[in-house]
Amino acid sequence: MNPADNADFGLLSPASAGTAASRLTSDYQFIQAMLDVELEWVRVLAAAGYVDAGLIPAVEAASTAEQYDAASLAERAQGGGNPVIALLGDLRARVKESSPAAAAAIHKGATSQDILDSALLLMASRTLEVILADLKSAAAALAGLAETHRGTVTVARTLTQHSLPSTFGLKAANWLSGVGQAGVQLSEVAGRLPLQWGGAAGTMAALTAVAVKGAQNNTANNDGGALALAAQLAERLGLADPVAPWQTNRLPVTALAAALADVLAAAGKVANDVLLLSRPEFGELSEPRAEGRGVSSAMPQKQNPVLSVLIRSAALAAPGHLAQVQAAAAGAIDERPDGSWHLEWQALRQLLRLAGGAAAKLAELSAGLVVHADRMQENLAITGPLVVSEKIMATVAPLLDDGVPGTGKPKVQALVNESLSGGTPFAQLLRGAVPEDKLSDADLQALLDPAGYLGQSDELITRIIEHFSDWSQA
Amino acid sequence: MNPADNADFGLLSPASAGTAASRLTSDYQFIQAMLDVELEWVRVLAAAGYVDAGLIPAVEAASTAEQYDAASLAERAQGGGNPVIALLGDLRARVKESSPAAAAAIHKGATSQDILDSALLLMASRTLEVILADLKSAAAALAGLAETHRGTVTVARTLTQHSLPSTFGLKAANWLSGVGQAGVQLSEVAGRLPLQWGGAAGTMAALTAVAVKGAQNNTANNDGGALALAAQLAERLGLADPVAPWQTNRLPVTALAAALADVLAAAGKVANDVLLLSRPEFGELSEPRAEGRGVSSAMPQKQNPVLSVLIRSAALAAPGHLAQVQAAAAGAIDERPDGSWHLEWQALRQLLRLAGGAAAKLAELSAGLVVHADRMQENLAITGPLVVSEKIMATVAPLLDDGVPGTGKPKVQALVNESLSGGTPFAQLLRGAVPEDKLSDADLQALLDPAGYLGQSDELITRIIEHFSDWSQA
Amino acid sequence: MNPADNADFGLLSPASAGTAASRLTSDYQFIQAMLDVELEWVRVLAAAGYVDAGLIPAVEAASTAEQYDAASLAERAQGGGNPVIALLGDLRARVKESSPAAAAAIHKGATSQDILDSALLLMASRTLEVILADLKSAAAALAGLAETHRGTVTVARTLTQHSLPSTFGLKAANWLSGVGQAGVQLSEVAGRLPLQWGGAAGTMAALTAVAVKGAQNNTANNDGGALALAAQLAERLGLADPVAPWQTNRLPVTALAAALADVLAAAGKVANDVLLLSRPEFGELSEPRAEGRGVSSAMPQKQNPVLSVLIRSAALAAPGHLAQVQAAAAGAIDERPDGSWHLEWQALRQLLRLAGGAAAKLAELSAGLVVHADRMQENLAITGPLVVSEKIMATVAPLLDDGVPGTGKPKVQALVNESLSGGTPFAQLLRGAVPEDKLSDADLQALLDPAGYLGQSDELITRIIEHFSDWSQA
Amino acid sequence: MNPADNADFGLLSPASAGTAASRLTSDYQFIQAMLDVELEWVRVLAAAGYVDAGLIPAVEAASTAEQYDAASLAERAQGGGNPVIALLGDLRARVKESSPAAAAAIHKGATSQDILDSALLLMASRTLEVILADLKSAAAALAGLAETHRGTVTVARTLTQHSLPSTFGLKAANWLSGVGQAGVQLSEVAGRLPLQWGGAAGTMAALTAVAVKGAQNNTANNDGGALALAAQLAERLGLADPVAPWQTNRLPVTALAAALADVLAAAGKVANDVLLLSRPEFGELSEPRAEGRGVSSAMPQKQNPVLSVLIRSAALAAPGHLAQVQAAAAGAIDERPDGSWHLEWQALRQLLRLAGGAAAKLAELSAGLVVHADRMQENLAITGPLVVSEKIMATVAPLLDDGVPGTGKPKVQALVNESLSGGTPFAQLLRGAVPEDKLSDADLQALLDPAGYLGQSDELITRIIEHFSDWSQA
Repeated sequence: MNPADNADFGLLSPASAGTAASRLTSDYQFIQAMLDVELEWVRVLAAAGYVDAGLIPAVEAASTAEQYDAASLAERAQGGGNPVIALLGDLRARVKESSPAAAAAIHKGATSQDILDSALLLMASRTLEVILADLKSAAAALAGLAETHRGTVTVARTLTQHSLPSTFGLKAANWLSGVGQAGVQLSEVAGRLPLQWGGAAGTMAALTAVAVKGAQNNTANNDGGALALAAQLAERLGLADPVAPWQTNRLPVTALAAALADVLAAAGKVANDVLLLSRPEFGELSEPRAEGRGVSSAMPQKQNPVLSVLIRSAALAAPGHLAQVQAAAAGAIDERPDGSWHLEWQALRQLLRLAGGAAAKLAELSAGLVVHADRMQENLAITGPLVVSEKIMATVAPLLDDGVPGTGKPKVQALVNESLSGGTPFAQLLRGAVPEDKLSDADLQALLDPAGYLGQSDELITRIIEHFSDWSQA
Repeated sequence: MNPADNADFGLLSPASAGTAASRLTSDYQFIQAMLDVELEWVRVLAAAGYVDAGLIPAVEAASTAEQYDAASLAERAQGGGNPVIALLGDLRARVKESSPAAAAAIHKGATSQDILDSALLLMASRTLEVILADLKSAAAALAGLAETHRGTVTVARTLTQHSLPSTFGLKAANWLSGVGQAGVQLSEVAGRLPLQWGGAAGTMAALTAVAVKGAQNNTANNDGGALALAAQLAERLGLADPVAPWQTNRLPVTALAAALADVLAAAGKVANDVLLLSRPEFGELSEPRAEGRGVSSAMPQKQNPVLSVLIRSAALAAPGHLAQVQAAAAGAIDERPDGSWHLEWQALRQLLRLAGGAAAKLAELSAGLVVHADRMQENLAITGPLVVSEKIMATVAPLLDDGVPGTGKPKVQALVNESLSGGTPFAQLLRGAVPEDKLSDADLQALLDPAGYLGQSDELITRIIEHFSDWSQA
Repeated sequence: MNPADNADFGLLSPASAGTAASRLTSDYQFIQAMLDVELEWVRVLAAAGYVDAGLIPAVEAASTAEQYDAASLAERAQGGGNPVIALLGDLRARVKESSPAAAAAIHKGATSQDILDSALLLMASRTLEVILADLKSAAAALAGLAETHRGTVTVARTLTQHSLPSTFGLKAANWLSGVGQAGVQLSEVAGRLPLQWGGAAGTMAALTAVAVKGAQNNTANNDGGALALAAQLAERLGLADPVAPWQTNRLPVTALAAALADVLAAAGKVANDVLLLSRPEFGELSEPRAEGRGVSSAMPQKQNPVLSVLIRSAALAAPGHLAQVQAAAAGAIDERPDGSWHLEWQALRQLLRLAGGAAAKLAELSAGLVVHADRMQENLAITGPLVVSEKIMATVAPLLDDGVPGTGKPKVQALVNESLSGGTPFAQLLRGAVPEDKLSDADLQALLDPAGYLGQSDELITRIIEHFSDWSQA
Repeated sequence: MNPADNADFGLLSPASAGTAASRLTSDYQFIQAMLDVELEWVRVLAAAGYVDAGLIPAVEAASTAEQYDAASLAERAQGGGNPVIALLGDLRARVKESSPAAAAAIHKGATSQDILDSALLLMASRTLEVILADLKSAAAALAGLAETHRGTVTVARTLTQHSLPSTFGLKAANWLSGVGQAGVQLSEVAGRLPLQWGGAAGTMAALTAVAVKGAQNNTANNDGGALALAAQLAERLGLADPVAPWQTNRLPVTALAAALADVLAAAGKVANDVLLLSRPEFGELSEPRAEGRGVSSAMPQKQNPVLSVLIRSAALAAPGHLAQVQAAAAGAIDERPDGSWHLEWQALRQLLRLAGGAAAKLAELSAGLVVHADRMQENLAITGPLVVSEKIMATVAPLLDDGVPGTGKPKVQALVNESLSGGTPFAQLLRGAVPEDKLSDADLQALLDPAGYLGQSDELITRIIEHFSDWSQA
């Protein structure tokens, strides 16, 4: 227990523990991201001729996270309210051992918020890659399900009750629609995560001084103004170059958080449906099985739909984390806020982890979902022909109108009620009520067939699949 | 008290009461939106030849909200879980009086969720127009402040303490940056609010039946398939035509809610700063005065910054409402959810109102904000030359290095500490420590001038104003 | 549409519209509460001899809410940031018409926050009475269900899957346990809602001056110090007398909000279960029917469980509102906060309404819930004897141990797997595996009977019913 | 980096990193809590004679957390959706090495939820001890500040503006009032955290079977019914014995979360005030200094109020976490929920850590807070005699009445306005307006003295200190 005395390994976060997103957002990865920002900045200054390029190797040598003690940094982060100052101290000390000049070249013109904000989005950017890959994989699998089950008739349910016939293909396509929309949005956000680089007050004053001094010394090779330097750093880090520093304008962070929450909502919708439809009373779907998954500590017969349980738990957690990020943005004040800035970090990281965990599990769930078309038929049969009562109402009511429009409707409703309460099959009651010359037996049969009342199911499946195919194959 | 017995007029919502956004989202406006959706749908069907165009006037005559009793509808909404069924009953009854055939033509192929969702976004769309107008007006005023105060030196503050000199122009530009980003995002969302039109199960089955039957009867004039009809309805309502119905894919709603929350966060940032800077101890800003605003019930001397107080209260409320909308999306199940759908309506309306109230107040605040440059100078003087200590450190430390890089830094820090604790002016200590041949009196003077350490303030102001000028003038 | 142009009647809040809680928290009721606080205060001052008792009737005459225009007050509330100043102006003007001296006696020593906070809790106090009555009624009905269904065997479900046999009586008792705990807590909170009476700065300075002056004039009849006067006001209003004014210590409000959220959570649990168990695939429960409830606009056969849908929607809304109240408390600053105070009002009112709506619907649902014991048996049969696999494991595994403890367990698990995959009835496999001399046919039969494995179901039902009977009958 | 690759050490949580509460809620401490529950249960069964007491040492030997691999458990927790199954497997395997019989005696009659829920509250219970100790320490320090500063006159502020004179002692007493209320509530909650012990379905069926079998074997020593056994376990763990298992009735958890959120709100209020009042423009308070705290990476002159920043950041995070816990409770379904249960764990742990971090920092802040009474005087002087305008209005207006009550008020208001706009000192204007025979110079002087208008400040300080002294010294 000793080195890790104080650490979390995700024991209470089964939705994300052990996933790539979780690893990519660990404390050590965040240290790495901070080191990367500092190192790239030295490189930018060297490229501009403002520091001696010969100093770079000394900084590089000290720029891997495993050289630092995360637990100690975490504890010392309390002193400054953020971990940058402590890390910078350790980094400089380490570099100084080999090159005092290199140590002095680090963090020139920067402030701790520059490092922290940029490292946070750099870490996010790296994590989004795996989340997007999982979402695309899930989308492809869902498109496959939609295609395969174009003709698998099932019952649509509204407010828990049977409404009309539909297809499982359309259900899968609707899942795809949610996942695809969230994925496209996340791709867009991923492409515009901005560097934050404004110096202590957002004026880039120290950076400007560095640039001016560099220029005076005739050391600058190229376009070395403060804004150009920041743009070069953004490019090196794979981040967007913003219009201006955004120290207290946190909309880049709320946009990311909202996009992650939407991923969770879309994944949650799938999980909610799977959890319902894999209940023994439904039996329409089963989760893919895997060794050691879904077992119970007490009950040998149980097979729990754990993938969906964990996806759902992640989705339910999103609103609270999103609220924190939004509260942080709404509480911004001054040129660096006195508490609301700090509120944002952990909430954002949790959203990255939860979205990552959910996306990974969704990819596996979508790829392996087992569909029981027979049980869909059986469940559809519970409501029987009444499941097309909307259609019957539209078709039969006019036939019973007695010449007065609207008078047929209550007659059909009366037949429905009689069937529901009395138990006589509705088809039989209907046959008795409508003369054969108005509706032949064959037409009646066709009228009552759920598969004959699927509307645009097929066309909608096609539209949805096509709409997201470019994105999911990109 | 009797007619309004049960009603709210915004008494406990001073941030939004009495604003245009509040009026545009009233219960009667929502009834109007539902009636508009029903009426336009009859028109679409008539244009397609599926209903007799001669029936339209009878529906039109019944399609103004004042003919209905909102309180009664609200109470009866409990029966179906939403107000559509009750309104539809009243609407049909009213139309039937003049034309039973017209009554029968209403709501063909539609379901209550189609009406409610589309009416909600139609109401939102109308409200966003005034919100966007106010945001643009605020943005223009903020750009004016930024321009005017390019040279107004003030102190930047981080973690509540003085950090570096900056300009009030840059502060105003940063406000603009937040408001502009939120506004641009809201404009985009406003342009893609989608129609929701899927019928009882999202398959468009009844609508398909209407279209097929219409086509069989040779009454259709034109491209009258179900999807084309929906597209025509979207166009008439000024809504976007979605890829597919989105009954349980609520990302269009979360996107709207997130954009409104961002508007509130951006406005909140301005209010937070104004509230601080108009405190008597700061005195840097004053809210515009207006008859009857800001007075106290007990204290005749008080002038409360009420605009900012109300904007801030609205901004602080956003995270909770956004969390509800996000929870609604994450909880979706089946083809119409059993509770999470309902959760969304009031939360979305509150966000519209709060954003509308905040935007209106922000426009007034930005246009009339009084800037006290003299008090900014006085406050800057509290820290004195230490406010450029970063620059001093960078400039002077090398001069005191004694040949060993890095040894000058602790010397400067010691001077800072001596000045802070002992009271001797820092300029005097500095003069004593640095030989004149290394730093002349004139250079020392220049070094200590806050106005000489503004970095890219000017350039950033220009960039921000330019970046948002197209949007704010559109 | 004109008088109500701007008003809400609950159209988008079907969970609470039209309920007593909604009426008791209307804008007019809040006006009434503010008037009641002002009037009782005049009475307290009169009783103390500080104002002429003859002035009371003039104030009384102006102290009914219907004399005021809520819409106008709401709009004017923006001026001061709260509605008290505007109402006070109108009240004084009205009283002045008959008695200028009486007008001058109103609001002596008070500040607008005193009125607003106290009126808010007074309104809450009145609303809690009906909420508690509904909760007690629900609790009694749930106790009845628990008692009636002590012997109704059903299946317990964990993580959506069948776990073990239980009874519907225990499920109802567990519902009671939640509702009862929330109700007891709400009763306690209701009994200690405090008066807020501190004057403009929480020092009771103006009030002290009134008392001192009164005493100097020898007009005071009795213990007329400032704190005593406040205590008398609390008593008249039925509120608790706090240790001190609590202007920026909002824990009395968070306690109320948390208790209301717990009521919603407890009611939500019931609704979640009813929604699931009344699905056609389960058929274990049905909601009580009522004219016009649960019907669909499109599908004549549908009967939606609307009571539960609305309860659930209310429960899902609670976390967001609670978060707002908590954020308001956490954001308090100074002696009256600049925005977070205002944030609290509407969130608290929404919680009162939602809890009131949920409690009313829960009372109706609990009283009329229809239990289908036959369907519970059928659903239990889906899993068959495997539902007692835990017991089988415990009983049979040792019999198959071959002398080595623990070796029997995998053998039983293998039988379970064989039955699940191969379809052979588990009872048959078991009989084949266990020699009759170790387990007779009769014992095997008994072992496999779900009704023989109910643990403490009966005792727990009794304990829960007894635990809450005093409270629910109070 | 290798063993901890995937771990968090609190790097992004400076408000809680390194605190006792953080250590007491680490993954290893949670493993320890689970082991403790399992071990005590074996002891209970042994004491009842249901297992051989000779097996206990083998279980004891395996019951320290450092023997287990938290990272591996976290990863395997995904399989069952919670860490209990994996831990139980490892525990049994470890015990089996020395004693197969002891391994078989573990977890008898229990289910994973029993272990997880009870361990969670056990961990909470241990953490609450240190939180309560810190809160009591903070309360004592605040009481000291209140006592010391009874006579330190300061200005009260409402809606950011000066309202009336008050004392810093009363401000500190009000802080104490919030902290004390939250602390008393937390103490109550700590005293009734319940054991959760219901078996797989909440019926205690397996446990009943154990007890029955034990009794049949005549091995039971004493009152060994299932409920009695659970009560004994509760006692051993220092948890309360609940009326019944509460698997899906999460109010014990919401009560704990709400109490922790209230602690954070109360601490947040203090931090908000300190942050404001230690701004250079106010200068009324300073945080205690400590080596390495509050320094800036760029600006040598800065001293950031880091304790308050971190407390505030923790307080702002509470609403989001509380919302999650409440959503978990509201989403409960069945006998173990399919996702909302899991949602609760991490949110609850975060609240424990944040409250713990805030309490520790608050204790340090309260003990070392530096009060600058001179700056309070200076700030009070900004408003000057107008700060008692309420009193002046009450005293002087009648003197200027000209016989008609109420006519004096606008005259005083006119003097206030003249002073505010024209700059003539208010005292001078007042002297000019009121004849000396109505108000002597001495009386005028006294009237304008802020220290003469403190109302019940002294008495309220006393009341608050007394009210919480028993609790804080317990």
